[in-house]
Amino acid sequence: MKRQSALPEPGHVTTGPIYRSHKIYREVEFEGHTLKIPARRIDLTNGEHFDVYDTSGIYTEENPEIDLQGGLKPVRTWEPAPAVPASEEHPELRVQTQLAWARAGIITPEMVFCAEREGFSPEFVRDEVAAGRAVICANRNHPEIEPMIIGKAFAVKINANMGNSAVTSSIAEEVEKMVWATRWGADTIMDLSTGNDIHETREWILRNSPVPVGTVPIYQALEKVKGDPTRLTWEIYRDTIIEQCEQGVDYMTVHAGVLLRYIPLAANRVTGIVSRGGSIMAAWCLKEHRESFLYENFAELCDILASYDVTFSLGDGLRPGSIADANDEAQLAELRTLGELTLIARSRGAQVMIEGPGHVPMHKIAVNVEWEEDWCHGAPFYTLGPLATDIAPGYDHITSAIGAAIIGQAGTAMLCYVTPKEHLGLPNRDDVKTGVITYKIAAHAADLGKGHPRAQERDDALSKARFEFRWHDQFALALDPDTALEFHDETLPAEPAKTAHFCSMCGPKFCSMRISQDVRDYAAEHGLTSVEAIEAGMKEKSAEFAAGGGRVYLPIAEQK
Amino acid sequence: MKRQSALPEPGHVTTGPIYRSHKIYREVEFEGHTLKIPARRIDLTNGEHFDVYDTSGIYTEENPEIDLQGGLKPVRTWEPAPAVPASEEHPELRVQTQLAWARAGIITPEMVFCAEREGFSPEFVRDEVAAGRAVICANRNHPEIEPMIIGKAFAVKINANMGNSAVTSSIAEEVEKMVWATRWGADTIMDLSTGNDIHETREWILRNSPVPVGTVPIYQALEKVKGDPTRLTWEIYRDTIIEQCEQGVDYMTVHAGVLLRYIPLAANRVTGIVSRGGSIMAAWCLKEHRESFLYENFAELCDILASYDVTFSLGDGLRPGSIADANDEAQLAELRTLGELTLIARSRGAQVMIEGPGHVPMHKIAVNVEWEEDWCHGAPFYTLGPLATDIAPGYDHITSAIGAAIIGQAGTAMLCYVTPKEHLGLPNRDDVKTGVITYKIAAHAADLGKGHPRAQERDDALSKARFEFRWHDQFALALDPDTALEFHDETLPAEPAKTAHFCSMCGPKFCSMRISQDVRDYAAEHGLTSVEAIEAGMKEKSAEFAAGGGRVYLPIAEQK
Repeated sequence: MKRQSALPEPGHVTTGPIYRSHKIYREVEFEGHTLKIPARRIDLTNGEHFDVYDTSGIYTEENPEIDLQGGLKPVRTWEPAPAVPASEEHPELRVQTQLAWARAGIITPEMVFCAEREGFSPEFVRDEVAAGRAVICANRNHPEIEPMIIGKAFAVKINANMGNSAVTSSIAEEVEKMVWATRWGADTIMDLSTGNDIHETREWILRNSPVPVGTVPIYQALEKVKGDPTRLTWEIYRDTIIEQCEQGVDYMTVHAGVLLRYIPLAANRVTGIVSRGGSIMAAWCLKEHRESFLYENFAELCDILASYDVTFSLGDGLRPGSIADANDEAQLAELRTLGELTLIARSRGAQVMIEGPGHVPMHKIAVNVEWEEDWCHGAPFYTLGPLATDIAPGYDHITSAIGAAIIGQAGTAMLCYVTPKEHLGLPNRDDVKTGVITYKIAAHAADLGKGHPRAQERDDALSKARFEFRWHDQFALALDPDTALEFHDETLPAEPAKTAHFCSMCGPKFCSMRISQDVRDYAAEHGLTSVEAIEAGMKEKSAEFAAGGGRVYLPIAEQK
Repeated sequence: MKRQSALPEPGHVTTGPIYRSHKIYREVEFEGHTLKIPARRIDLTNGEHFDVYDTSGIYTEENPEIDLQGGLKPVRTWEPAPAVPASEEHPELRVQTQLAWARAGIITPEMVFCAEREGFSPEFVRDEVAAGRAVICANRNHPEIEPMIIGKAFAVKINANMGNSAVTSSIAEEVEKMVWATRWGADTIMDLSTGNDIHETREWILRNSPVPVGTVPIYQALEKVKGDPTRLTWEIYRDTIIEQCEQGVDYMTVHAGVLLRYIPLAANRVTGIVSRGGSIMAAWCLKEHRESFLYENFAELCDILASYDVTFSLGDGLRPGSIADANDEAQLAELRTLGELTLIARSRGAQVMIEGPGHVPMHKIAVNVEWEEDWCHGAPFYTLGPLATDIAPGYDHITSAIGAAIIGQAGTAMLCYVTPKEHLGLPNRDDVKTGVITYKIAAHAADLGKGHPRAQERDDALSKARFEFRWHDQFALALDPDTALEFHDETLPAEPAKTAHFCSMCGPKFCSMRISQDVRDYAAEHGLTSVEAIEAGMKEKSAEFAAGGGRVYLPIAEQK
């Protein structure tokens, strides 16, 4: 690993616990290994605590030992599971992938890790992986990551894109963006660097990332031919793939579904081809007037990826880039081809995700999941938003969160975030955080909407804290405690306001929650807890109430 | 109108055109009156223009004559339509409301105004109003507003809340918030002031607002009894209502559906009663141990509102305040009562909207519209979000935009915005803009999703501009051109970048849209515009392409 000076140093990344919480590890024994299952424990003021799924690695520990040069210590210290004997019936079992092991009935440490992390049984995880409905993105050369699972049955995951480093100094920025994105909840990172230091940037990110890392290898291949797609060859691409597999990339976007005959289908669109990889492959196909080297060499590609257990993210090179182009022939034709490729990849033991749109109006979103599940044999869907309208550049984290929540509820397994800078510029650190939090919202809303068994626990904990005026707990349970605290301080900065029994929005006189609590207490004391009791017409309660201390509002009103 | 010094002055409000657009008025003759139908014309660099619905009044004109002291010049200069003779069958026709006229088959200037503004026929508008499926909020004492219509068949509208002025100086801030909110697209304003200057603040807002203004009169009534809800009486409330009707308020939230027997249903909720008005009425009912003065005097209330043509916004005092409480018995019981009240109000000629939740997970949202339409006889639904999760204070504009878009698509007519400060503090001017733009996104996504006939035109215009690298047009067509421009400038500040044929996100070498355009041009030139042509196996095209100037990528790549 060659490294230059003026590169990332420990002080360049954000470390330390998130507001009123600390990192915990639950130890689970499995076949002689001790798996350390991470979580973030939020300490509440009422003596209770609440544990949340956490992707931030050691960076959120108290005083973590950070060695960016040396990288993270391996988490996956175990030996790979044994090779499974291939058979004539199951030739795919000659490879060592999570898919192959799962199909052979073997439970791996990764499966146990994912199961414990999300509260499912290892057997269930294995069965979902075996069916191809879930993937565990974990390159055998990437031991630093904490294994996680992507699939419809599990919590919806989010990906944060980063990368792009024309100058060396920005490698430090990209590493911090990675740490920063995982701090706020990114489940995977994609390094989309297209500058001069692609390999070097990726190396720093891979060695220091606690989450799986994805790439789009065609970008680096294109750099190798100085940006001219017509000079791309299978050999150049293959070498790039191997280089990235060796380095530890966990999943790769491959635009093998862009077929020559689909290109005219996109010709009369409002926004043509908006996928970079898709447009590059279209240019190549048209020039060569034959199918792409990705498509023609797909079986070999499968064997390479499977030999490292790198997961395919079959790219939607013809995804719609505008509301007008949503769900059109070009998009659907490619999706059918991705389904065919899915079967080829699985038959060779490789894990597969399918990428999806893009820009789609709300009423056309859910059917995308139906098509994908049907045509691509239940492979996990991984979508970019989609944006539910085109008219709000500068706010496309929001236009796309609407689509992302809906498509997540419908069954999409992972959502690729969109930042406020989409269509306009490169996201900075603040944009990365905004994108991640926005997508955590969309993913969580989707988890609630699809009935994930544990999703509502956090909503209930936060709402209970809100109703009980436990302000610090409300902040601590929020996806972004720092911003919640900052906003509260803007209106009521004093510390007593953090324990006040009224809401800063309405002030003491108009606090519905305060009145509501008094109403509840009064009703309980006077046996008015049922419709029957109320309807019994206990007129005398009225007098009692007025005479006693039960004036539900005065204790606060009198303060004024 | 008593006014104090140190109050709003013209320089305190934002005026002037929005980026590359100007206000236009289309003149429509109707029964001897000239109606000036407003719109905002966006001037495009290709010589075309695009007109958008606009709520900003004269403030976005070039050098408008602003006289905040005197207020806006009346827009509704016409006489009210004639009184309609009542009949035994239709006693409601003794009043002069848009509903009464519509039922009598009369088309009013307001109906023509609304019809022309949205591109429907006056007859259609009349029929929707007559059926109670749409309302035109226009107090006869509020001639300054540009009439607009709220109903499922029309574009989804958004409301912006403001108000709260403990000190006089903030009246100026609230007036600017009103102007600022309508600049960015608020269709109505609610003045929720609860301080000492309620009447005064409202007067400034009413006289200067180009959009309908709503209130929650119980807030002012409560101030009159020094914040003690148990001292509220029908007489105090009625006087407050009349005061506000006289002043020109266009619609009023009335929590008449909080019945005594519903209170125990809310007792064991996670967040009890979260509506201020609802909690106030619950406290009153429990103390008095009888139904509220709103419910008991509802018929008289209807007659007062109808005599000014003030629209009811029947409040959901028992709306859920958390995911856990969504769609519970308390909420549904009240909604049924609101349905009963709707019929009473309509029978007395008053227009009615129904307010809705609140906090609802995605899978429980659409059914709210079904219930509301069924039980409340098709009255326009007006919802607060709803928030699709509780776990993101600081980002509740986003958690609620997800719910708002979904409920809008399902048929909600107006969405009450939520700002980033919800649950945490008071929105400032920036928060107001963020809330408005976020809700314009939700409303527009809903319009697309429900198939509003003209909604997609703006998406198409913007996407076409994007694909053709007309950067200035992309910004101008955006909901918030200023932010789009600012974000683009951050990455590529130079003016040439505004005409560059590549996207600032990807840079020249990876510009999919550029490649895509080249692909399209090449395909057109070589007759490769159909699948058949491609499949004809024109191998010779390959050689032509490589030899000719058609190398789709090199023109840009060679720049490097």
